[in-house]
Amino acid sequence: MELISRMLAGEKRACARLITAVENNPEEAEKILREIHAFTGNANVIGITGPPGAGKSTLTDKVVKSLVDEGKKVGIIAVDPTSPYSGGSILGDRIRMQDLALNPNVFIRSMGTRGQLGGLSKYTKNALKILDAAGYDYIIIETVGVGQSEVDIVKTADTILMVMVPGLGDDIQSIKAGIMEIGDIFVINKSDLFGADRTATEVNMMLDLTMSMERRPPVVKVTASKNEGIRELVSEIKNHIDYLKTSGKLEERRKNNMKLEVVELIESELRKIVISHTTSENKLESEVNKIINKEKNMYEVRDEFLRTIKE
Amino acid sequence: MELISRMLAGEKRACARLITAVENNPEEAEKILREIHAFTGNANVIGITGPPGAGKSTLTDKVVKSLVDEGKKVGIIAVDPTSPYSGGSILGDRIRMQDLALNPNVFIRSMGTRGQLGGLSKYTKNALKILDAAGYDYIIIETVGVGQSEVDIVKTADTILMVMVPGLGDDIQSIKAGIMEIGDIFVINKSDLFGADRTATEVNMMLDLTMSMERRPPVVKVTASKNEGIRELVSEIKNHIDYLKTSGKLEERRKNNMKLEVVELIESELRKIVISHTTSENKLESEVNKIINKEKNMYEVRDEFLRTIKE
Repeated sequence: MELISRMLAGEKRACARLITAVENNPEEAEKILREIHAFTGNANVIGITGPPGAGKSTLTDKVVKSLVDEGKKVGIIAVDPTSPYSGGSILGDRIRMQDLALNPNVFIRSMGTRGQLGGLSKYTKNALKILDAAGYDYIIIETVGVGQSEVDIVKTADTILMVMVPGLGDDIQSIKAGIMEIGDIFVINKSDLFGADRTATEVNMMLDLTMSMERRPPVVKVTASKNEGIRELVSEIKNHIDYLKTSGKLEERRKNNMKLEVVELIESELRKIVISHTTSENKLESEVNKIINKEKNMYEVRDEFLRTIKE
Repeated sequence: MELISRMLAGEKRACARLITAVENNPEEAEKILREIHAFTGNANVIGITGPPGAGKSTLTDKVVKSLVDEGKKVGIIAVDPTSPYSGGSILGDRIRMQDLALNPNVFIRSMGTRGQLGGLSKYTKNALKILDAAGYDYIIIETVGVGQSEVDIVKTADTILMVMVPGLGDDIQSIKAGIMEIGDIFVINKSDLFGADRTATEVNMMLDLTMSMERRPPVVKVTASKNEGIRELVSEIKNHIDYLKTSGKLEERRKNNMKLEVVELIESELRKIVISHTTSENKLESEVNKIINKEKNMYEVRDEFLRTIKE
């Protein structure tokens, strides 16, 4: 496909068009992803997550600039509805981001958060593969750290940055449950605000209490808006990438992610089979009527459908 | 099963033990749910959703008390992590709820929000069926209106209350996207606060702008903490239940929910088949290695697995 050759040559517009094609047409998606598979697996994927208002977009902005200054190519996938990349946030932010978007070594893509969230996770992974094949050295996935689906998305990353801000208070508690453990680097943003030291201490204490860690995640204080601490943060990101590579964890993570993806692919194919079976001749409609009239229970109906699928 | 007879006779402890059994053991769950199916379908299910801080728990408390005063039996399923029923919120709330829990005509169950959210939706539906079979006239599902999974859970209800509070501001905009349309009754809680009229006007305007509605949802102003407006709200709930029954919408809603549930059941069974196929002899492990080494792409692996499953 000509578009793929142009994308592999690093053309931004070809990249954008391929991502759109992959989003809009599942068959096209499969064709494209089969073709580019051989070119993937080289990018360092960084996930940036945290509550709304933590300043993730400003942080992304500064980290990207720092990497670009080193001559790196950086892709950004924004899944965060409050991100200026996705059309959220205030005007000033958005103008700043457009500035970044004009840089030939930066590619920005925002993902809608409407509709099926499971689908969103799939689209994000597919967009990631395209940017990876296109030769972006770093790919940043920015997402709010709330629901399970956002966690699933950010788990695709090799290095996960948990962004927090001073004065979250009880929020640290709520973030702790299920999301804290996925952080590879903890970033206290807006460190010029009152309470930054206390927040850092709280995060450090919490990390010390977590026994099962093979690697103790660092806590980095930054003030993204003033570009303070970004150099240290980028250096911690690189340390983590080195750690992943030398320890074999990178391979392990990517293998686990790929296992999940294969299982999801199989399930999605089977789902299509289920849908075609159940929708044929209003079979589901009539069976559900029987369930509601108490002639059958839902397990009996399930078993009957399974028999026809297996035939 | 003796436990089922005791539950059908309305024994609260038997109810609680069955819900726990259904949560912990999928095989047991299927056995129990097959047996009780004939006794389900009689309860009026009310979903209460809205942002954290909207006072959903206090509202639930007052609505339940009002229904109990009429001699009704009410079950509460709290999926809201900030709900006092689920261990969240402040001490005073929790004590008040315990008071309710001691009432012989009230059953309270909280659902953990950790772990698989898809699972949570299934557990909620199963708990609902048990309470339904146990003869509760009304079952209230309380959940925060954020992620897709919470929306899926609240959609199980016949009547959905969207709870809002004055001064949400931009939040109305964010709630609008995807969640507003599921509300059957809009409740402006804390109506004694400044801005209540404006919020009510905004919600009313938004509802007027939505063209496709067959039934215009009412907007009810309440101050749950002072027990103001609760009588009107309960009367609107009953109006909605009447509307559902006379218009045939109740049957339609329940049919659609049941369709989804059957499809999910089939998918869940197929998932087990996928897992048993992929985990056998580390088949998935070795295939994923081939993907990572670029010997195969993930679609080739998927197709091979599908062939073995179909055999």
